[in-house]
Amino acid sequence: MPFHFFTSFARLPLVFRVLIISVSLIFAFGSIVHLLEPEQFTTVFEGVWWAVVTAATVGYGDFAPKTVLGRLSGIALIMVGAGFLASYFVTLATIAVTKQNDFLEGRI
Amino acid sequence: MPFHFFTSFARLPLVFRVLIISVSLIFAFGSIVHLLEPEQFTTVFEGVWWAVVTAATVGYGDFAPKTVLGRLSGIALIMVGAGFLASYFVTLATIAVTKQNDFLEGRI
Amino acid sequence: MPFHFFTSFARLPLVFRVLIISVSLIFAFGSIVHLLEPEQFTTVFEGVWWAVVTAATVGYGDFAPKTVLGRLSGIALIMVGAGFLASYFVTLATIAVTKQNDFLEGRI
Amino acid sequence: MPFHFFTSFARLPLVFRVLIISVSLIFAFGSIVHLLEPEQFTTVFEGVWWAVVTAATVGYGDFAPKTVLGRLSGIALIMVGAGFLASYFVTLATIAVTKQNDFLEGRI
Ligand SMILES: [K+]
Ligand SMILES: [K+]
Repeated sequence: MPFHFFTSFARLPLVFRVLIISVSLIFAFGSIVHLLEPEQFTTVFEGVWWAVVTAATVGYGDFAPKTVLGRLSGIALIMVGAGFLASYFVTLATIAVTKQNDFLEGRI
Repeated sequence: MPFHFFTSFARLPLVFRVLIISVSLIFAFGSIVHLLEPEQFTTVFEGVWWAVVTAATVGYGDFAPKTVLGRLSGIALIMVGAGFLASYFVTLATIAVTKQNDFLEGRI
Repeated sequence: MPFHFFTSFARLPLVFRVLIISVSLIFAFGSIVHLLEPEQFTTVFEGVWWAVVTAATVGYGDFAPKTVLGRLSGIALIMVGAGFLASYFVTLATIAVTKQNDFLEGRI
Repeated sequence: MPFHFFTSFARLPLVFRVLIISVSLIFAFGSIVHLLEPEQFTTVFEGVWWAVVTAATVGYGDFAPKTVLGRLSGIALIMVGAGFLASYFVTLATIAVTKQNDFLEGRI
């Protein structure tokens, strides 16, 4: 069953796989930081907002972890999540450009 | 008519297509955030400034949406706009380097 | 004379050309913002610090233009400078990796 | 002895080499900024947190050097570290995607 799940996952187009992994990381780290620093991240949505802003390397600074554990999970999110979001950005833009060219050359 | 418009658009050089899409997204999201949080984004220009700073992943934090709807549109801008701006950056730099090489090798 | 200057420039290795353009943009925009908002950017060095932090898309937010003209020059720096710095980052890392491989395979 | 060390290092997979260089830069600059501005960066961990946030171009702005020497080392970290972290992000994501494809095609 988990094997079938993974095989189905791996057969999805690249952009969906990268997006699913990115969204999962965002929700996981958004929940973790809400548990670790509940005074600052009062809701899971505030944690998710911080995780999106961090993994996309925007980093407004309206939310930033202040405890050692919170900062260690922030470092983990940066080291794992930023790569997936960067891949997602590049894949999405490549698809948009390729589809336009396919259309122009009569393939769609 | 829209069909001709799209065909003309798709025939433009890559850097212009990516730039046109980026600029459109910037103005669209700059206007949306001005409507959603008018107390913070008092003019459309402040919304546009926030959208450029966000989509380029600079993220000064001088402006950042505070409502759930504002943050959801911020997430949408990041997920769609950041990829286009990253593509624009890469395309622009590639052109600058290629033009110099073309000049050197006597092609322009 | 300017022609010879450009030819010499174009013959430099890619990483130096990208670095020279990036450094020139940083100093140009650092000076411009110092002239446009002298109350905030009290020295040219503060302008240069802001321009590096902006073009590298770090964006601490310790300095951010507040006038329309200052923000327009910020947008110009982002649209032109961020591409060059991104190219510089990629070129530098590629060289570091390639040199190590060259060394391993006995070429240096 | 240093020669053997370098040869062993250069034989490691690309992602480990880039990660080792990135982590070394993070600790080096985290310690430097702690020494240069001890009032703001009261512990080495705060320096390391700032260095990760800077080299990944997140830039929350909760920590930012305020002295000329501190800012010069910040510029050095950006010019050297951001390239390595960007390479690490790209390499990591490429590996994740390739491994999934290898698995699907029966190679692992
Ligand atoms: K940033
Ligand atoms: K930032």
